[in-house]
Amino acid sequence: MGLNLAQKIIKEHLVSGEMVAGSEISIKIDQTLTQDSTGTMAYLQFEAIGIPRVKTKKSVAYIDHNTLQAGFENADDHKYIQTVTSKHGIYFSKPGNGICHQVQLERFGVPGMTLLGSDSHTPTGGGIGMLAIGAGGLDVAVAMGGGPYYLSMPKVCKVELKGKLNPWSTAKDIILEVLRVLTVKGGVGKVIEYAGEGIKSLTVPERATITNMGAELGATTSIFPSDEVTLEFLKAQGREQDWIELLPDADAEYDEHIVIDLATIEPMAAKPHSPDNVEKISTIGKIKVDQVAIGSCTNSSYMDMMKVAAILKGKTVNPNVSLVIAPGSKQVLTMLAQNGALADMVAAGARILESACGPCIGMGQAPCTDAVSLRTFNRNFEGRSGTTSAKVYLVSPEVAAASALTGVLTDPRELGEAPKIEMPKEFLVNDNLVIAPAPEGSDVEVVRGPNIKPFPLNKALTEKVTGKALIKVEDNITTDHIMPSNAKLLPFRSNVPYLAEFCLTPCDPEFPARAKANGGGFIIGGSNYGQGSSREHAALAPLQLGVKGVIAKSFARIHMANLINSGIIPMTFENEADYDAIDMNDELAIENAIEQVKKADTIVVKNLTKNTQFNVKVTLSDRQVQMILAGGLLNYTREQAEK
Amino acid sequence: MGLNLAQKIIKEHLVSGEMVAGSEISIKIDQTLTQDSTGTMAYLQFEAIGIPRVKTKKSVAYIDHNTLQAGFENADDHKYIQTVTSKHGIYFSKPGNGICHQVQLERFGVPGMTLLGSDSHTPTGGGIGMLAIGAGGLDVAVAMGGGPYYLSMPKVCKVELKGKLNPWSTAKDIILEVLRVLTVKGGVGKVIEYAGEGIKSLTVPERATITNMGAELGATTSIFPSDEVTLEFLKAQGREQDWIELLPDADAEYDEHIVIDLATIEPMAAKPHSPDNVEKISTIGKIKVDQVAIGSCTNSSYMDMMKVAAILKGKTVNPNVSLVIAPGSKQVLTMLAQNGALADMVAAGARILESACGPCIGMGQAPCTDAVSLRTFNRNFEGRSGTTSAKVYLVSPEVAAASALTGVLTDPRELGEAPKIEMPKEFLVNDNLVIAPAPEGSDVEVVRGPNIKPFPLNKALTEKVTGKALIKVEDNITTDHIMPSNAKLLPFRSNVPYLAEFCLTPCDPEFPARAKANGGGFIIGGSNYGQGSSREHAALAPLQLGVKGVIAKSFARIHMANLINSGIIPMTFENEADYDAIDMNDELAIENAIEQVKKADTIVVKNLTKNTQFNVKVTLSDRQVQMILAGGLLNYTREQAEK
Repeated sequence: MGLNLAQKIIKEHLVSGEMVAGSEISIKIDQTLTQDSTGTMAYLQFEAIGIPRVKTKKSVAYIDHNTLQAGFENADDHKYIQTVTSKHGIYFSKPGNGICHQVQLERFGVPGMTLLGSDSHTPTGGGIGMLAIGAGGLDVAVAMGGGPYYLSMPKVCKVELKGKLNPWSTAKDIILEVLRVLTVKGGVGKVIEYAGEGIKSLTVPERATITNMGAELGATTSIFPSDEVTLEFLKAQGREQDWIELLPDADAEYDEHIVIDLATIEPMAAKPHSPDNVEKISTIGKIKVDQVAIGSCTNSSYMDMMKVAAILKGKTVNPNVSLVIAPGSKQVLTMLAQNGALADMVAAGARILESACGPCIGMGQAPCTDAVSLRTFNRNFEGRSGTTSAKVYLVSPEVAAASALTGVLTDPRELGEAPKIEMPKEFLVNDNLVIAPAPEGSDVEVVRGPNIKPFPLNKALTEKVTGKALIKVEDNITTDHIMPSNAKLLPFRSNVPYLAEFCLTPCDPEFPARAKANGGGFIIGGSNYGQGSSREHAALAPLQLGVKGVIAKSFARIHMANLINSGIIPMTFENEADYDAIDMNDELAIENAIEQVKKADTIVVKNLTKNTQFNVKVTLSDRQVQMILAGGLLNYTREQAEK
Repeated sequence: MGLNLAQKIIKEHLVSGEMVAGSEISIKIDQTLTQDSTGTMAYLQFEAIGIPRVKTKKSVAYIDHNTLQAGFENADDHKYIQTVTSKHGIYFSKPGNGICHQVQLERFGVPGMTLLGSDSHTPTGGGIGMLAIGAGGLDVAVAMGGGPYYLSMPKVCKVELKGKLNPWSTAKDIILEVLRVLTVKGGVGKVIEYAGEGIKSLTVPERATITNMGAELGATTSIFPSDEVTLEFLKAQGREQDWIELLPDADAEYDEHIVIDLATIEPMAAKPHSPDNVEKISTIGKIKVDQVAIGSCTNSSYMDMMKVAAILKGKTVNPNVSLVIAPGSKQVLTMLAQNGALADMVAAGARILESACGPCIGMGQAPCTDAVSLRTFNRNFEGRSGTTSAKVYLVSPEVAAASALTGVLTDPRELGEAPKIEMPKEFLVNDNLVIAPAPEGSDVEVVRGPNIKPFPLNKALTEKVTGKALIKVEDNITTDHIMPSNAKLLPFRSNVPYLAEFCLTPCDPEFPARAKANGGGFIIGGSNYGQGSSREHAALAPLQLGVKGVIAKSFARIHMANLINSGIIPMTFENEADYDAIDMNDELAIENAIEQVKKADTIVVKNLTKNTQFNVKVTLSDRQVQMILAGGLLNYTREQAEK
């Protein structure tokens, strides 16, 4: 039986387990990446593990999230990351060098390799034929130490692309269409594998847009083959030697199969407040636009930027629109500055932001009250822009640029002929903002600013787990709800005690105080609990507040793994109707908790307040059981080391 | 008797008073400018005055301070300013168009005209031969309404520049030398007028660097003649028609006269934490540098940027340095993007920030803990960078760029030959980010976001003024101490009740609570109280807290005017020893306050706690007396209107 792409790479990297969908496997990790908002924690954890030198083929630490630097905290984090990585053999990408996923794709990604990144958009690397997975910082720390990465063997969903895009339809519209079809839950437990004739017409940056935003499907990752198009890209990056051909076997099998005819794709937008709330621009209508933001790891490539520049050239941004553009990397920015495209953007009235995540992660450019903001980004969760009342639409760079000129949501087909941008035969290569680590054995002082606080560590599971239902939340709660990520809080990613004061406050401002007053307890969630970013702070902050378990209708993959890594029990209702029967402040108890968790099946939860009981499922591998018993991955890793 | 430049312009614009140094005069204002951090308040006040259309020749509202937009507040302020200015006949410079002083110089400044700006660095316009003065927002509001601007007739200090600068010595070093000689108090009550053979070799941007940072002398303003050099600049800006020749009379008289031989000027730095703490780079030594920041209204011109680009070209920023560069205007940025200089900067590893004030006003790029930060800016007050422990050195762009490459404070003469940059014969002119106001009579809706709160309004002076000495502070307290301006607070410039919670907290975190608990009272200050920025929030926040008077050894000019505008009595100790005799919480009382203020001479203050009394001076013009009696300029203006 032939193998698909995902299976091929997994097989090549398999450390343990059987390649049967749903069963736990572990794979060897070739490359890791971190960014600064998850990175400080990942390196603190790496230090706690105690391995002196990374054992991956290449590990890179990027600074791209906290680049506004409203206080000393960010700069201190940058210094900590620069020194700790230098000491332990990790490459350091300085602020200004660009967004991790964009730079990783340009400079370091290798087809057929595995990449684990402490950022949910790590699957961007799938655009070049990597198996690139987002995970919590602790998982990345373990992988840097040479440990395998554990996951459920995913199902593989083939998305067959037929035909060719029409002018003005884009890769962004393809992934929006996939999101429309599959929804934000449709990728859970799956790798989305792109195939078909249509992929030949998609450049690597276009493929990367699609795999990047595959994260919004809840997928484990997304992947394209490594073919001639990939080779051309790597050649142009001066990295021809990194290319291998990687195609699915002719008789590869897939768990699911979807066909999309590219010729039918029209310019689209994901409307507020979900990436799968997708509709054609032509039917949404000409709503008035206050802000347009172009950039992010989804749409900040050279190709994207050149198209935007071509649309803006010689024109002027509408007086009522603030247009901000953040090119994705130093490579992109330098090329735009050399070839005049940046001058065209500025002349038209664009505000140029640093090459970084910026407004996509709420670091700046919060729109005005009640604003309509068009963004080429990947997430439009309520409040993520920094303005609760803002209405964010996710669109292609072409729609964004066209609308910036007109001041209303605009189908770019109205502009006439689409600009024709060729992929450069040669990208400008200058890696002088990537600092190589100090040679092994060098004496490197790790600089720790006062904002870097010890992270919370759980204790071994007790016989009886009791506590109140501290909060009860609805479906599709994102990690942005659990641990808000905005310009005010992002600087505190290495200070969990401080962050915890804001845990789940978008749902209930009293939650942190209540959790502390009760000495911890349980969170009651709906379905798809913990979707969105990979931040393990969404587990660490509850841990800091004493949360012992989360009972939900279902979990997002990375968040569930982060809970287990923190020793917090993730439980799903056997009968969803039991969700309705719990009220906030109900006293819950799990008796014989150790024994029940060991069975890793059904657990009985008593509701002492209502004098009832109900069943929940704990779907844990043997290893995950051990982690829960030990009180998290770090304790477990230490226990293993001691044995 | 011949007139100097300042006297010529004042004479031309005199509305009332006699041109006798120290006596109150009022002058007609031709142009006004506001920026967004003082502008919201200025326009709220303009609305309160109730005049439908500005009466100046040109008024421009810039957005350059709050451009990070960490929350909705900034964008709401931008929208308020855009709509309120459109309604009342003011030009609106969109965010991205650049720093007010840079743009005003390039596009709107006219030799011989008067410019009043709600920003202390308004004197930048003196580089082009304007009488350009910084003032509180309310003064600017009155001027926009056609009212004259009141000030003490300044003394005029002639600074005669002889000879020529050596390579690598710069305009920045000239103003640093002037600061070294005159100190931050040396300009109080004076116009600094530049003359001599040496000025012919200084371009308009270089002159503007000097007049800009003249603000740090405490001067009313600084001014250069309008000569052939000015004409060349205006020609290159396509504004030849705005030029007039404006030279001092051959027999002009000056109150003071300083001679500086440009050939003796070496590269210098203002060391922490004062702009007059000046020393030669060569004697400070090669201290390790963590951050280099190039830009701000002092040093962000095309010429500055081209020199920096030439120094950086083909090299790489030191791995341990974060170099940020913010070109001063859209004009500058576009030209750099067109001619490849920006590409050289980026290639060398510079982080490019938006054309705005940015780190100079603490909006981002706070350095790391204990950092040494070299900045081409104008102020290095403690904590202004956003990092209390940071040590900020003010330097020329050349020193900054050289040091960014080496990682240590570097005398650029070590680099060999200095780059030769020619002034462009033609600047790129494209004012498409300047939005003209709506035609008179148009129906413009003024958009007010929820962060825009009513400003505090004082009441008429009472017979008896009593209260505690709420705080006692030292010499040289800046408006940064009185009303901190950082990335967290700047977004609240239109929300005085919120800001007041942070009033004087750098000196004493308990001050706001104590002031409120006591229903207001007095502030006891040292000499040069209120130096620094023009922000009237440093008067409005105390007013909000109930402060009735400030007793200090001496006052900075703009802050004293702002206190009077708010109806807060500024008093100076007749005998400075009395400062020592007051303790915090002493109960103070001014009896027969109305009568005593009317005399505008000596006031008796009783210290009820110590059962003593002491004399203070109130140096007020008749008009200022009326303002204090009425409870501030706005009440006074209304009273006048009613009469």
